[in-house]
Amino acid sequence: MSAYAKLESHHRTLSQLEHLGSILSWDEATMMPIGSGKERAEAMARFRSLIHEKKTEPLISSFLEQASGENLNDWQKRNLELIQKQYELSQLFEPSFIEKMTRTSLQTELAWREFKKENNWKDFCPLLSELFQLVEESAAKRAEFLKVSPYDALLDQFEEGFHQEQIDPLFKEIEEFLPRLREEILEKQVDRPQLSLKPNFPVDAQKQLSEKLMSQIGFSFERGRLDTSTHPFCGGHPSDIRITTRYQSHDFSSALMGVLHETGHALYEQNLPAQWRTQPVGRSLGMAVHESQSLFVEMQICRGRAFLEFLLPELKRSFPDSATSLSREHLHLLYTQVKETPIRVDADEVSYPLHILMRYQLEKQLFSRQLKIQDLPEAWDALSQKYLGQSQGDRYDLGLMQDIHWACGAFGYFPSYTLGALIAAQLRKALQKERPSLSDEIQRGDFRPTILFLTEKVHVHGRRYSASDLIPQATGKKLGVEDFKEHLKERYVEGTF
Amino acid sequence: MSAYAKLESHHRTLSQLEHLGSILSWDEATMMPIGSGKERAEAMARFRSLIHEKKTEPLISSFLEQASGENLNDWQKRNLELIQKQYELSQLFEPSFIEKMTRTSLQTELAWREFKKENNWKDFCPLLSELFQLVEESAAKRAEFLKVSPYDALLDQFEEGFHQEQIDPLFKEIEEFLPRLREEILEKQVDRPQLSLKPNFPVDAQKQLSEKLMSQIGFSFERGRLDTSTHPFCGGHPSDIRITTRYQSHDFSSALMGVLHETGHALYEQNLPAQWRTQPVGRSLGMAVHESQSLFVEMQICRGRAFLEFLLPELKRSFPDSATSLSREHLHLLYTQVKETPIRVDADEVSYPLHILMRYQLEKQLFSRQLKIQDLPEAWDALSQKYLGQSQGDRYDLGLMQDIHWACGAFGYFPSYTLGALIAAQLRKALQKERPSLSDEIQRGDFRPTILFLTEKVHVHGRRYSASDLIPQATGKKLGVEDFKEHLKERYVEGTF
Repeated sequence: MSAYAKLESHHRTLSQLEHLGSILSWDEATMMPIGSGKERAEAMARFRSLIHEKKTEPLISSFLEQASGENLNDWQKRNLELIQKQYELSQLFEPSFIEKMTRTSLQTELAWREFKKENNWKDFCPLLSELFQLVEESAAKRAEFLKVSPYDALLDQFEEGFHQEQIDPLFKEIEEFLPRLREEILEKQVDRPQLSLKPNFPVDAQKQLSEKLMSQIGFSFERGRLDTSTHPFCGGHPSDIRITTRYQSHDFSSALMGVLHETGHALYEQNLPAQWRTQPVGRSLGMAVHESQSLFVEMQICRGRAFLEFLLPELKRSFPDSATSLSREHLHLLYTQVKETPIRVDADEVSYPLHILMRYQLEKQLFSRQLKIQDLPEAWDALSQKYLGQSQGDRYDLGLMQDIHWACGAFGYFPSYTLGALIAAQLRKALQKERPSLSDEIQRGDFRPTILFLTEKVHVHGRRYSASDLIPQATGKKLGVEDFKEHLKERYVEGTF
Repeated sequence: MSAYAKLESHHRTLSQLEHLGSILSWDEATMMPIGSGKERAEAMARFRSLIHEKKTEPLISSFLEQASGENLNDWQKRNLELIQKQYELSQLFEPSFIEKMTRTSLQTELAWREFKKENNWKDFCPLLSELFQLVEESAAKRAEFLKVSPYDALLDQFEEGFHQEQIDPLFKEIEEFLPRLREEILEKQVDRPQLSLKPNFPVDAQKQLSEKLMSQIGFSFERGRLDTSTHPFCGGHPSDIRITTRYQSHDFSSALMGVLHETGHALYEQNLPAQWRTQPVGRSLGMAVHESQSLFVEMQICRGRAFLEFLLPELKRSFPDSATSLSREHLHLLYTQVKETPIRVDADEVSYPLHILMRYQLEKQLFSRQLKIQDLPEAWDALSQKYLGQSQGDRYDLGLMQDIHWACGAFGYFPSYTLGALIAAQLRKALQKERPSLSDEIQRGDFRPTILFLTEKVHVHGRRYSASDLIPQATGKKLGVEDFKEHLKERYVEGTF
């Protein structure tokens, strides 16, 4: 067995353990009774530290050395590169540190669930500070190794190579045009007709419709499920993808779009190259590209006029009591409403990047030590006023405690959402150029050419290329803001998309 | 740190990994999409083999030696004894054997689910033979170490110390009285009035009632859940107990009693001594004692007249459309019906041991090499005619393919059910002696004294004593058939219980 083959075999084991870990994480978020949290956190911490021990087995180092001299094809070469980076980064941490980090982040997340309900920042702050210290320690070690700043080291974890140097100019451009554009749209929407739906959308019927649409778009229920959780997400393993949503019986619209969003994530995972599934090169790229897949399906396809045309009769069939009077114009109004809300996950497509910009500012300040966790409330409030024109006062649950990310130690994750939106817009423009018939296909419910495009341009490559290489290959140009801006104008100003 | 403390710490890790494994097994049975089975089996096999590597770490051996000279209290001594036995048994197997066994049994189980539906013995037989060979190999190794027969080595896995020498005379006694008693009861029941219920028991209402009763009996939903699966079971971990049932909207009776049965298992796990939870001595005893807890709750409490009296108004509240005409006499008829069925899990309390006796015969023959897997159909049919007076011909799905046990390699498990029934009857007689007011308490829904009795006599001891020591302590006498026989007569002949 060649040294490279030994590394592959070792990574098969790691990937099998990660597979089990991801099912357990799904269980924790959807099924686990609250009283089991502490023991589960301890067990998961132990499990993660054992995986870490496996990752850092001393033998790997000599396999890596030998393998670099072996005759490998391009996929194998890239795989070896990824294995090497992962090994070297793992070496920076003792298993005991991983154990502590896992335990602390799971416990902080569980505490957050309760403290958020109680709007209790006072008791949450020390826990978050403790977790933040661990993240800072980890960032410092990664930064030293990668020769970048600590915050860049965190950003790199979520999308390799996307650092402040790449993100800053993109976000600056957004900051320059978006607030004004948003004002313009809000004014334009002032005297929109109000939609009055008889609010009766049985959860069972919502679920059935969701599953039908998921299947039609290409989700395989042979290798996946749809469930309910407080915070919708896509988890699991490419062979067993678990997406979740939350239903409200007085409103079908948010759960439905949520499901379609998560379906975009799911398709990426389900269409990864099967023969590389157990290797680093066969996994999905970072969270920016991942988010581009969900936003592509939600924002670039399913909120468009063509999809809504296809959706309308489906809605009437699913909700005969409540949706009969719905028109295509109603639906378009419903799905293009721009509104003032302090909550990121409730924000519309136009306002969303502003929620991200403020979080990005705060994270930069935190990791350059210009800001302390205990001073977050004032800093949050100032930026919320600046970007959203709102203050939530001491309603921390509507402010800095609204998101799960920091509570589970995921600092550096937020920019992915807006980067994903930019990539998604660029992908759609590229697809549109390739297929002038796109909107006809969508309108008649034929999603195969669209999904085939995503699969060929993105999914099947796994991590064969970095995001910075993949985006120009897939869209014909470097990542920019232009297509996203044009998309927003088409949909919200001109109303043509 | 003393050598004993090191062993405890090592077992804390093992117990944490087992905790995660048990949640994953629950997921596999209740949630996992069918198409993920193969990859999950591979991943679980790898996981189990890693646990096995941990179990057999060479350092343990020297800790064991040192610890035997250390000053330990009785719990610690017993814990050390169990650790030693577990270690020595683990040493008999290579991790690769455990991996193969896990993979083969999971895959055979998945195949069984499909082949059973198709009544396809032809294609199932070679898979079962392959799995059987592995079980035989494992039994032979354990037998040599334990100095018992291979089948005794398997029985020992499910209830330590309960070998053929202990089981044979008990089962012989059952064989002597039960078939005749059953005939007598069947005759007596010939002209029972037929119950006609308007068959409308909404699944939601069934689930709500189940959860209400579970809580009232003492199940903690803070540390457990109730879900749906094809084959009801109790799984999970003492901090996170997962029980399942299956509902039929035309009949509340079987799901409800199923839930109460699994609640008995669950209470045992939830009431184990918390301070020993991570150690072998803190776990539940074998499957015979476990089954005694579920059968106690179901057969000795919940099918009794006092409980049915308590249950009646609950049923009327839960099913106002269908249960209004139910009387206590109806309920007693419903829950004491003895019937002819080829299916073990549908069998009544009186017929059940006959299903076990025939499986016990077959297993003894298989492991003494008097019978081959491929000859099971004829042997099954002969015993089915002898014990149940029935032949299912080539309906293997109603015959030897009906049970999951062999399909997942659990040979030697079946006797536990009937041993459990004997223990349960003995426990109830003992409780009745202690508490003459028992039936009044049950009738008014006060289960605390009953559960306290089980907890004090059984649950809190974990594995501090062997089953053979615990049973006389808890019931005042050695395990026998007498109390079970008396119980059957009271309920089915005299109709007083």
